[in-house]
Amino acid sequence: MAIIDRLLDLIDQKQSASVVGLDPILSRIPRHLVGGDTLEDAGDAIVRFNCEIIDSVADIVPAVKPQAAYYEQYGHEGVLAFKRTVDYARKKGLIVIEDAKRNDISSTAQAYADGHIGQVQVLNSTRPAFDVDWLTVNPYLGSDGLEPFVKNCARYDRGIFILVKTSNPSSGELQDRQIAITPKEAKELNERGVRDATTTTALSNLVALMVDRYAKANVGSRGYSPIGAVVGATYPQQATILRKIMPTALFLVPGYGAQGATAKDLVESFNPDGYGAIVNSSRGIIYAYEASKSPERFATAARDAAIAMNLDIRKALKEAKRLPDGWRAA
Amino acid sequence: MAIIDRLLDLIDQKQSASVVGLDPILSRIPRHLVGGDTLEDAGDAIVRFNCEIIDSVADIVPAVKPQAAYYEQYGHEGVLAFKRTVDYARKKGLIVIEDAKRNDISSTAQAYADGHIGQVQVLNSTRPAFDVDWLTVNPYLGSDGLEPFVKNCARYDRGIFILVKTSNPSSGELQDRQIAITPKEAKELNERGVRDATTTTALSNLVALMVDRYAKANVGSRGYSPIGAVVGATYPQQATILRKIMPTALFLVPGYGAQGATAKDLVESFNPDGYGAIVNSSRGIIYAYEASKSPERFATAARDAAIAMNLDIRKALKEAKRLPDGWRAA
Repeated sequence: MAIIDRLLDLIDQKQSASVVGLDPILSRIPRHLVGGDTLEDAGDAIVRFNCEIIDSVADIVPAVKPQAAYYEQYGHEGVLAFKRTVDYARKKGLIVIEDAKRNDISSTAQAYADGHIGQVQVLNSTRPAFDVDWLTVNPYLGSDGLEPFVKNCARYDRGIFILVKTSNPSSGELQDRQIAITPKEAKELNERGVRDATTTTALSNLVALMVDRYAKANVGSRGYSPIGAVVGATYPQQATILRKIMPTALFLVPGYGAQGATAKDLVESFNPDGYGAIVNSSRGIIYAYEASKSPERFATAARDAAIAMNLDIRKALKEAKRLPDGWRAA
Repeated sequence: MAIIDRLLDLIDQKQSASVVGLDPILSRIPRHLVGGDTLEDAGDAIVRFNCEIIDSVADIVPAVKPQAAYYEQYGHEGVLAFKRTVDYARKKGLIVIEDAKRNDISSTAQAYADGHIGQVQVLNSTRPAFDVDWLTVNPYLGSDGLEPFVKNCARYDRGIFILVKTSNPSSGELQDRQIAITPKEAKELNERGVRDATTTTALSNLVALMVDRYAKANVGSRGYSPIGAVVGATYPQQATILRKIMPTALFLVPGYGAQGATAKDLVESFNPDGYGAIVNSSRGIIYAYEASKSPERFATAARDAAIAMNLDIRKALKEAKRLPDGWRAA
């Protein structure tokens, strides 16, 4: 089964569109997991922490999202902890989304694609390296920087999320600016319901149009594409437009919880059928134990927070009359 | 001495503005360096290859630029090879530019900045992780994604190159588009000699204006800033404009050699004083041995290619009457 269909099936099985973000910060990892003061100790503590979190949420969410920066900050020891986390999560049946926002010119983008969502040639064989299911990708370099990732998605049955509208306060500095478009692009945007696009549109809309072209050429059996988009929950009005421009693309929606977006805000990232988006929460889940001050029970606290998030999203989808068909039985 | 001043001094000492790009591809590394068929063997071969290249060019170029993608493709074993390369090059007195095009929202960008150009907190101490001198950074997320990198530059005496106009064929798809600007931005661009900027300008010009604001707030004793820009040599007309918008920013100029730009093309990235740019060549140098088919002499071939590049750039600067003052004695 194609990875996009497997993800949608997991969303139905677990009645959850939640993604648990694995953003390890050593000072917030319970002290009893930290064995010493080196980068290697940091890596080991991260693996212990992540594995317990994974065990405690594996049956209630479809995916986890380790954020590369929080591993790279501990050097190659942290990167090894990243890899051990990926392998453990996949073994537990979870989809793994690597949030690394990679980007480069074509030949170099190919190396990133092979290393993260493909295989690399060594002496007499090809081998997977990081071997994740989905990877986030930055579009600033244009199509020749994106296509190696898109091609690897087809070749190795993987997915990407291209940054379209990010969740941070300054995302609009470039992404919201009006940018010149061609008559053909204006027509394509109009056809998708963006009526005010004549000679210009928001940069994020133009990137969305690029994503849509890749997405619709790679649709799985349930109507969605593994070529997806990052669309921040913190900008629901733009999500409404972006959902129209990219009807088949899977949205990875950051910004829920710690960044301030509510379940109501993120409903706009879902299609009327109740699918099409997965919602990430990192610190609101993995560091939920801090509120109770019970570091020994961090994994249980994470599970409780994930259950609460599932219910919160379910309630918002139901109120918006977008509860997925596959969830109604429960 | 501040890192930007040390780099300029090295450029004078070695009479070279060349950067040797370290892009390891196992199938192009001489066979006698490859011990086996695992990712670990790949990592070991990369370190052997890079160390010999570094030894052979350390006295004739100021800097090397390992490209993260070519290490990550071999997984965490490749990332360890990256770190060993960085440490070896710095020990040999070379400036190390990590080409990783990192980007994220503010708190996550801080983790990247700490891991690559800073220090990370572990249990009772702070430690450097990758510990490079300069890092390339992607601007798509706006200022809150850039500022953690800029702040680490000041705090830890490091540098960044923000992607402005990349060297690849499709860079213009977004970067060349006309984008809306404010009257204040139009005025700032006009003051820098961009006369046609009234209500719109190229996206790359707008990013350049952001870079200039960071750059001019961080100028070293020789008039240049460690907050720099990536400006592809393949687009010399745009380089002329970008040089005016960012007079103090150091330019990292890719595209020379294998990507097709000539020394004449890249002169536009230098200021009239002959400084302000460093030029990268990766495959044209490290795989120069392939033309002679003498894999045993790969390091000598790399040295010869670097010498030829130095001379080529020197000649072009001289013809353009931009030979640096510090080079005239030779």
